[in-house]
Amino acid sequence: MPQKLRAGILAATGTIGQRFVELLADHPHFEITALAASSNSAGKTYREACAWQLSSDPPASVAGMVVRECTPDLECDVVFSALPTDQARDLEPQFAAAGYKVFTNASAYRMQGDVPLLIPEVNPDHLQLVKQQKVFSSGGFIAANPNCSAAVVVPALAPLHRTFGVRAVIVNTMQALSGAGYPGVPSLDALDNVIPYIPTEEEKMAAEAKKMLGDLLDGHHHDAAFKFSAHCNRVPTRDGHIETVSVALERPASLEDIARVWREWTPEPQQLGLPTAPYPVISLRTEPNRPQTRLDRDAGRGMTVTVGRLRACEVLDFKFVALAHNAVRGAAGGSVLNAELALARGYLG
Amino acid sequence: MPQKLRAGILAATGTIGQRFVELLADHPHFEITALAASSNSAGKTYREACAWQLSSDPPASVAGMVVRECTPDLECDVVFSALPTDQARDLEPQFAAAGYKVFTNASAYRMQGDVPLLIPEVNPDHLQLVKQQKVFSSGGFIAANPNCSAAVVVPALAPLHRTFGVRAVIVNTMQALSGAGYPGVPSLDALDNVIPYIPTEEEKMAAEAKKMLGDLLDGHHHDAAFKFSAHCNRVPTRDGHIETVSVALERPASLEDIARVWREWTPEPQQLGLPTAPYPVISLRTEPNRPQTRLDRDAGRGMTVTVGRLRACEVLDFKFVALAHNAVRGAAGGSVLNAELALARGYLG
Amino acid sequence: MPQKLRAGILAATGTIGQRFVELLADHPHFEITALAASSNSAGKTYREACAWQLSSDPPASVAGMVVRECTPDLECDVVFSALPTDQARDLEPQFAAAGYKVFTNASAYRMQGDVPLLIPEVNPDHLQLVKQQKVFSSGGFIAANPNCSAAVVVPALAPLHRTFGVRAVIVNTMQALSGAGYPGVPSLDALDNVIPYIPTEEEKMAAEAKKMLGDLLDGHHHDAAFKFSAHCNRVPTRDGHIETVSVALERPASLEDIARVWREWTPEPQQLGLPTAPYPVISLRTEPNRPQTRLDRDAGRGMTVTVGRLRACEVLDFKFVALAHNAVRGAAGGSVLNAELALARGYLG
Amino acid sequence: MPQKLRAGILAATGTIGQRFVELLADHPHFEITALAASSNSAGKTYREACAWQLSSDPPASVAGMVVRECTPDLECDVVFSALPTDQARDLEPQFAAAGYKVFTNASAYRMQGDVPLLIPEVNPDHLQLVKQQKVFSSGGFIAANPNCSAAVVVPALAPLHRTFGVRAVIVNTMQALSGAGYPGVPSLDALDNVIPYIPTEEEKMAAEAKKMLGDLLDGHHHDAAFKFSAHCNRVPTRDGHIETVSVALERPASLEDIARVWREWTPEPQQLGLPTAPYPVISLRTEPNRPQTRLDRDAGRGMTVTVGRLRACEVLDFKFVALAHNAVRGAAGGSVLNAELALARGYLG
Repeated sequence: MPQKLRAGILAATGTIGQRFVELLADHPHFEITALAASSNSAGKTYREACAWQLSSDPPASVAGMVVRECTPDLECDVVFSALPTDQARDLEPQFAAAGYKVFTNASAYRMQGDVPLLIPEVNPDHLQLVKQQKVFSSGGFIAANPNCSAAVVVPALAPLHRTFGVRAVIVNTMQALSGAGYPGVPSLDALDNVIPYIPTEEEKMAAEAKKMLGDLLDGHHHDAAFKFSAHCNRVPTRDGHIETVSVALERPASLEDIARVWREWTPEPQQLGLPTAPYPVISLRTEPNRPQTRLDRDAGRGMTVTVGRLRACEVLDFKFVALAHNAVRGAAGGSVLNAELALARGYLG
Repeated sequence: MPQKLRAGILAATGTIGQRFVELLADHPHFEITALAASSNSAGKTYREACAWQLSSDPPASVAGMVVRECTPDLECDVVFSALPTDQARDLEPQFAAAGYKVFTNASAYRMQGDVPLLIPEVNPDHLQLVKQQKVFSSGGFIAANPNCSAAVVVPALAPLHRTFGVRAVIVNTMQALSGAGYPGVPSLDALDNVIPYIPTEEEKMAAEAKKMLGDLLDGHHHDAAFKFSAHCNRVPTRDGHIETVSVALERPASLEDIARVWREWTPEPQQLGLPTAPYPVISLRTEPNRPQTRLDRDAGRGMTVTVGRLRACEVLDFKFVALAHNAVRGAAGGSVLNAELALARGYLG
Repeated sequence: MPQKLRAGILAATGTIGQRFVELLADHPHFEITALAASSNSAGKTYREACAWQLSSDPPASVAGMVVRECTPDLECDVVFSALPTDQARDLEPQFAAAGYKVFTNASAYRMQGDVPLLIPEVNPDHLQLVKQQKVFSSGGFIAANPNCSAAVVVPALAPLHRTFGVRAVIVNTMQALSGAGYPGVPSLDALDNVIPYIPTEEEKMAAEAKKMLGDLLDGHHHDAAFKFSAHCNRVPTRDGHIETVSVALERPASLEDIARVWREWTPEPQQLGLPTAPYPVISLRTEPNRPQTRLDRDAGRGMTVTVGRLRACEVLDFKFVALAHNAVRGAAGGSVLNAELALARGYLG
Repeated sequence: MPQKLRAGILAATGTIGQRFVELLADHPHFEITALAASSNSAGKTYREACAWQLSSDPPASVAGMVVRECTPDLECDVVFSALPTDQARDLEPQFAAAGYKVFTNASAYRMQGDVPLLIPEVNPDHLQLVKQQKVFSSGGFIAANPNCSAAVVVPALAPLHRTFGVRAVIVNTMQALSGAGYPGVPSLDALDNVIPYIPTEEEKMAAEAKKMLGDLLDGHHHDAAFKFSAHCNRVPTRDGHIETVSVALERPASLEDIARVWREWTPEPQQLGLPTAPYPVISLRTEPNRPQTRLDRDAGRGMTVTVGRLRACEVLDFKFVALAHNAVRGAAGGSVLNAELALARGYLG
């Protein structure tokens, strides 16, 4: 049995940092050896430094670890980053330059040409972009998971795009409060309210969807050519982004065709049996009132994308509902799966 | 000063019935003279029969009134109906045949050819359809307000349709719990959840939008020809349906054109100064994060439609957010305004 | 390895019935062999009959089982009852008379002299009361778990009562929505509201606390003599009853004494290692703001009673906060632990 | 008609500042002439500076006013302070020394011997304590309203204390989110949760209750002698603190006696007809399930204290539920009523 890789977590005390801790505390290939956070937290034990949001208490294996500052001298090989964008912009290149493999949830470098924006089921081949990073010779690189909203709809679109060609998408998100981090949305703004605006979210969704569903030709990345329009809303739920989607296709497809493509889709992570890969990737519900945020967000331990209400759309071609756990599939779980893919493909050797 | 018209309320103890009571308790033209409900309630005072949901207590003027059964022998001239669909189907024609002017929130007859489906700002001329009803000779008729979801988006579309022609609409609703009545949605289904399905709601929205924005030519009604696709969702808010809308137009219009048309729109109820008519009908907010359900649902005492986030749509032409109070503009207030229009146009004489 | 006992669940499709299914689906000593519910559900598969409220889907092992009617001819040895009180009153004696061992969450027989009202950590010896039941000779009996509110505070009081004598208790509950079952509390009553009244709850808490903390002398049960006053409230949380408690003792005790008694308490289920017994029974938190409903309700897989904020009370002697999962410790988990105790003590042989 | 007094509001943009604006925007005796807030807000119009939390928009009369810094050179005679405690400690004495009459919601000086802690219905005579303030010769003084939790239970206790003597009180609060200000409680802590801890709240309640229900003898204040124990909890409601109360009395009283004392209580503000005084002060509900937070918090425009569920307590003598609007009766409305009392008694001349 091979030795586990040593993993560090940046911004380990925040909402997504806690999810990284939860997902890695008992992982077959990674072992948490470093927890880093702001200087306020550094020097304290994780238990002291962290207002643990998940139920009960932090895992016993990490509760007593001393939190470090986010400097590139952590004792680990792989770094999972939950840093806020502005800090990520400064720090992640430092870690990569120091030889760390950085798997990040931050948006700072997602749209940079040589940074793979990855959903392992969707565009695993984009991982090779890391070789174009200047720091790659030092052994380090940056690979990003997408925005939590894009992470819901893009897996649902991916097999349809490969099979029928997506021509246009209108998506409306109803996003959970945990997507805004902690303290995040004040309760007085959340209770009994919908806020139909999340800064920069609509732009990110469109750009990231096109990058991830784009093609790599001769080592050059080309965005997908479809049109994409998003309406992003904050609703009073804790976890789980649920999205309604209308789609137009390039080539004709019946509702049965679409359902079949979803059901039959078995991409690389599922073929490889990566530890965090869910089965199925896409769970198609046939009840009229599913998926629902609370009932389906934990499907596949938060990694499954549940779709339902597949039906014709009078304006575009068809429409459906998609749901996934924003903090797992849409954040920490996404980067953990990215790291598992990288390990399987030999990038962490 | 003319005498007030005597008003009765059917299903007066329910969620929408209570709104009728609230809106009519101090109305300049109508006086509540009859409250009717199921046989369980009949014979009790309104205070006893009614689990009053609005804050504090029922208006003193009606609290002591004895609730009657819903039979067409109520002491009133005008009837406001909050009946459930199946009861409305039986009872409303009986009331109309007995000479009552029935203003209904029920869906039973909304799509019938000779029943006007009215938003007074949108299609006041449709009121004349009542003359085609067989019962009209007896003095009675039925006029309906639309579904609460249609009542939000249709006023926002109406001036655009008249000016530029609407070609296609994709709308996503995030509807409040009061829209399902009482007891309605169980709290275990509502808390921390989104239910992306409301039975028959999407079909109603499409059909009703086309009927209301259609034309009356030579006494014959013709549906509007645009395409309309709705995604309807229940979210955990008390009151206020908020909707995101993407629209394609027949003729070119800049965002400034659209804003100007909304701002300048002064339809008949506002010109006539009807008591329940809001000023403005359409309130265009320019902050990036408005309208919000809780902050804007009571604008214009629940009758204003607040719009915002007007911007280009990459797939259709432009997109925006619209909000109104589902139980006022979208239900009881809609029928009260219908009755005010009918009075002003001489149909209640 | 001994064969598992066959277990049936009455009212298996409801809120507590689903918890029984969850707890028994993979139990080391019991195997679900019968699911029963109302005649509406009978004949359908459990998946069809049940609006599953817990996340995702019912366990695969029971999803396809056909639901039976609640008649005493089920293929099982032990019956777990989630019946509503009125049905329990009729049906549970029929099951007991037919030789079934009935472990019930219903209140129908809790206060009957020969029915043990059990919390295995608190009063395991009361189990012997079943021998006084007339039906015991047939092999059947009824044993009850307490009301969900009593199940939170009584375990916290039990070791204090044995050590120092409880003289008086004032308790204020803040009870979750799931305690009212499904559909239960309408969302319009729950959202943004506290309802300071739960019918018969305060009386049940007082009577049941005195019965469980009472003594069995010469086979006769004597209620505990302390005074007990409850204020019961419904608050908008999904699961977890949290209670504030002021207590007066018969004999002097410092706060340290109380903390020590809680920490050192290791009652019979923990000594026996019963499968559903939590470790510790009482978890004493020392942070100023714990327990909290959401963070601590799942401690010990819902069976731990978490206490905190132990401090002096100016009116009585000391005060604290207690929390447990109402649907697990306070309902289904309570009866499963009762059955495990009965098995260990040889009552299911 | 006398000229209105000029009123300034400190911390006018916050949660309680907005309530002061709402209550004073159309007041018969006061006119808002100055709005002050932090230096971030100073120089902006109120509309720009303020994230208005109440429905729709700030009153037109103040929306365009320019916000000033909180320095004692505001153009006004009376100052209403919604300052946080630490700022109040510095600034309020400066305002008083400069001749302003300061009516404050802050806790900084509530327990100071020469500062009246006032509920005009409860202890109007305490107002004379301002004459003992050194700054009184300059024309200025400080008068405080109590903590929002004390403001609910103390009016309910006051007439009982005067008539029967209160001996001991145990109170459990279930406090709304607005009590923590804005941004206040993060939504991730509020949703589906109860937090059984509000820093310093329990101590404040006890000390303030004893001060307000104490006596002024020969100009010296003596605390009331009863025992008072509070359990304070944050629950997920927007507005309205609801409290369960157990009380022991010095002299015997039947439940009918208590109800009669509450019903007949007509203290000075109601006798004087002060504009903000509610009728009745105490509203006794007799339904089993009232008061409820959402239904009753707005009674008397937020100034009425609604009580209900009056019944015997097995441990103390009797128990009941009390509710009032924390941001009106418990904060801004309290200070406005204080100012009205001061005006009526000639302290603002």
